[in-house]
Amino acid sequence: MDDQVSTPYVIWPDFPIPAASSYLRGMNKAMLFLLGLMLSLRISAASPDSVQIRQIYSDILRHGRCYGWLDTLCNQIGGRVSGSTQAEQAVAWGKQVMESLKPDRVYLQECMVPHWVRGPKGSEKCIMISRSAKKRDLRITALGGSIGTKGKAIRAGVIEVKTFEELAALVKGKVSGKIVFFNRAMNPEFINTFEAYGDAVNQRGRGAIEAAKVGAIGVIVRSMSVGINNHPHTGAMRYVDTITKIPAVAVSTADAEVLSQTLKTDPNTEISLALECEKLPDVKSYNVIGELRGSTYPDEIITVGGHLDSWETGTGAHDDGAGVVQSMEVLAAFRRLNIHPERTIRIVLFMNEENGLRGGTAYTEAAKAEQSSGKKHIAAIETDAGGFTPRGINVEPNGHGMAQFSAYAPLFHPYFADRIESGDGGADISGLKALGTVLMELMPDSQRYFDVHHAETDVFESVNRRELEMGAATVAGMVWLLTKYGVR
Amino acid sequence: MDDQVSTPYVIWPDFPIPAASSYLRGMNKAMLFLLGLMLSLRISAASPDSVQIRQIYSDILRHGRCYGWLDTLCNQIGGRVSGSTQAEQAVAWGKQVMESLKPDRVYLQECMVPHWVRGPKGSEKCIMISRSAKKRDLRITALGGSIGTKGKAIRAGVIEVKTFEELAALVKGKVSGKIVFFNRAMNPEFINTFEAYGDAVNQRGRGAIEAAKVGAIGVIVRSMSVGINNHPHTGAMRYVDTITKIPAVAVSTADAEVLSQTLKTDPNTEISLALECEKLPDVKSYNVIGELRGSTYPDEIITVGGHLDSWETGTGAHDDGAGVVQSMEVLAAFRRLNIHPERTIRIVLFMNEENGLRGGTAYTEAAKAEQSSGKKHIAAIETDAGGFTPRGINVEPNGHGMAQFSAYAPLFHPYFADRIESGDGGADISGLKALGTVLMELMPDSQRYFDVHHAETDVFESVNRRELEMGAATVAGMVWLLTKYGVR
Repeated sequence: MDDQVSTPYVIWPDFPIPAASSYLRGMNKAMLFLLGLMLSLRISAASPDSVQIRQIYSDILRHGRCYGWLDTLCNQIGGRVSGSTQAEQAVAWGKQVMESLKPDRVYLQECMVPHWVRGPKGSEKCIMISRSAKKRDLRITALGGSIGTKGKAIRAGVIEVKTFEELAALVKGKVSGKIVFFNRAMNPEFINTFEAYGDAVNQRGRGAIEAAKVGAIGVIVRSMSVGINNHPHTGAMRYVDTITKIPAVAVSTADAEVLSQTLKTDPNTEISLALECEKLPDVKSYNVIGELRGSTYPDEIITVGGHLDSWETGTGAHDDGAGVVQSMEVLAAFRRLNIHPERTIRIVLFMNEENGLRGGTAYTEAAKAEQSSGKKHIAAIETDAGGFTPRGINVEPNGHGMAQFSAYAPLFHPYFADRIESGDGGADISGLKALGTVLMELMPDSQRYFDVHHAETDVFESVNRRELEMGAATVAGMVWLLTKYGVR
Repeated sequence: MDDQVSTPYVIWPDFPIPAASSYLRGMNKAMLFLLGLMLSLRISAASPDSVQIRQIYSDILRHGRCYGWLDTLCNQIGGRVSGSTQAEQAVAWGKQVMESLKPDRVYLQECMVPHWVRGPKGSEKCIMISRSAKKRDLRITALGGSIGTKGKAIRAGVIEVKTFEELAALVKGKVSGKIVFFNRAMNPEFINTFEAYGDAVNQRGRGAIEAAKVGAIGVIVRSMSVGINNHPHTGAMRYVDTITKIPAVAVSTADAEVLSQTLKTDPNTEISLALECEKLPDVKSYNVIGELRGSTYPDEIITVGGHLDSWETGTGAHDDGAGVVQSMEVLAAFRRLNIHPERTIRIVLFMNEENGLRGGTAYTEAAKAEQSSGKKHIAAIETDAGGFTPRGINVEPNGHGMAQFSAYAPLFHPYFADRIESGDGGADISGLKALGTVLMELMPDSQRYFDVHHAETDVFESVNRRELEMGAATVAGMVWLLTKYGVR
């Protein structure tokens, strides 16, 4: 590579990292591998599929606009919980961006959404009082949907547990009048952090119900985050009408450790908790929809989406600004490349994924009505797992079998995004399951997701431009295949 | 998963992200896939390999110390260019950490290293003077190895080119007395950013030689970074004795754009450049080596390493603090898990990868001497491509064939690190090629690498704990396989 080079010792600095040439060789091998697999899977090597997908990745990596859009959404609008002014602004912004891409149609789809508010800045207070440690503020934030403390702090002793079973096994009366502290950490041994989340999140979702059942007056939940950090991570919780509603907060994992340690030396440690969050009447809001009509099969619809709402602890960059802008990038890339899809594409920016799924529900209801008038929702793909490097796509074939989709994996091998695996689609599109729709979700690398998820760290700066664009290109590539081949 | 759930619409908040369950299903499928592949590849399903590798990942994700070590190396010691006090401190620190892990032997291996110094903080000055723009400081930094400007600024007009060919084609005399501005951007369309680096880095490495050949008095090179940012990225450059040595700097990609734009409107734009960098006499330094002796085949050696030196623009977190601490984590994990390897492991913290490869050369020379006395360097694995999520391992089989190593891929599938592909090992171990050693390099995700590479952004905070640990576990898993099976 360098004509003045004679021994491997002097290859630097033109190639100080031999990995450069190694990757080139790796690429040649990957090409051969791809070719072999394509032949063995009877995808014709002469088919333009790999060429078209290469064009899509190149276009988005060179001309992609999703990163700039994300900047605007996060930094001009900000966090946008359903029912807020910011959520309303996000709807108007999404509609405007979508219109600028000139699809065949852009429209809003109405839905009524919950309107929960956290209360004034600084109104969330959680003080630890103990004989064995200095009085201190714990870093907490109300869980989404929690009631407030009705104008004054509640103060009580603390019972720490790790599971609902442990809570239920406590001596009757021991929990009465106390605050329950759920402190089961996310298990770091799960390779996919979403599994660790699934393993821990019932504390957040149902903790207030289980604690109230045995007489608790409040709940503190260890944040759903891997490792130790200083940010409380919010997220949805719920009540049931038959059980007393009690306030519920997330505490940072670092302060969860402090509280747990303090309780070990002083079991009489108390917590004083004040929240001004409350639930207001439902508000009218919207999904934003852009449609590019299919040239040959306009009645076969492929839905592509992310959710427009977010928690307001951060600015909803990974969750799910990334999914919103990646979905719109699919449309933008098709326009730039002058692709006229054979089947119809719907880009849907869903409202209210975080605490109600009302946008997803409204879309499903409309889809059912369409289906009965001859339109068919053949496939839907959501991107709502972060704007990180894509590893592949989860497919819920919903009766259609995996074979068609597994056969696409070699096409994504050059982009390191070839894990086309069986799994669920995203939450917003889950209702389409009843229509026989094939459901998919982009599967990005999960290692960093729970550092930022629902916390003040979920901001624009935590998103890498290329990783975001690679995810958009992966979705666009799969959408293109679906528009071409449909679902068999 | 939730007994109170009846329709998919209300599965939140216990499972607000259906991906959680989807990944669980994906895992089952992955397990089946793994099993199938293991059978088809005649790795016995009853073999303990997958169990041992699972233990290694779990151990490192739960008990790993590499992240804490990296904190110390970056934040207590800092950037550590060869010959500096910090490099000396890093040697002492590496020896101490290695000794604390109690391998069979820890020792230093001497090498003489170049001692290039950048000059006092603030001494690097590059001012753009033009009739069409306000006078401004461009964000530059000297390339490693550059001469200074001998106590006063040089001032000259600027010739912008993108390639050596373009430079050579210029009218004779046009470049004489000017500063050449190499402004070829890294190509964003390469999926693997190391390929884009390989495609652009000759401007940095050989730019000063090519420019001086046609009479230039200085060189400004667009930083080796993807996209537009404000940080100059340094890196090694070189001279040859037969061509006049001229000063060479990297300019941030953002300021490269400014300079290029300004030159378009005013071709007479000038640059004033002052540098106080200089080359001092060579200094004695060391590789740090820790050895765990093989129980059955002590004379078969597997080398594992990263490089201890770094540029001092940042604190060398990804390049290559990550590789250093990951290599030591292999040793730490083997100790924690009480693994007594059948073959000998050498953990080597190489000195002077960045601007001389003197540590790698010294190690190779010693290995040659050992080989002639009956010890055999069967394999070497380097980690020097960043502390990001691992995608796999490059293998340069060096005459041994890929089959043995490709067969290990299924063992890394559960960790998303199963791209065992043909490619070069790292720079430090490249000399071992002459000994018939199988060379390998950890292949992390490359998307973010050139945001931080050789720049002030390459700091501890840019490394994610889990990504770093996953990389360490991937190396440890491969090393364990090599200690068990050797090279066939």
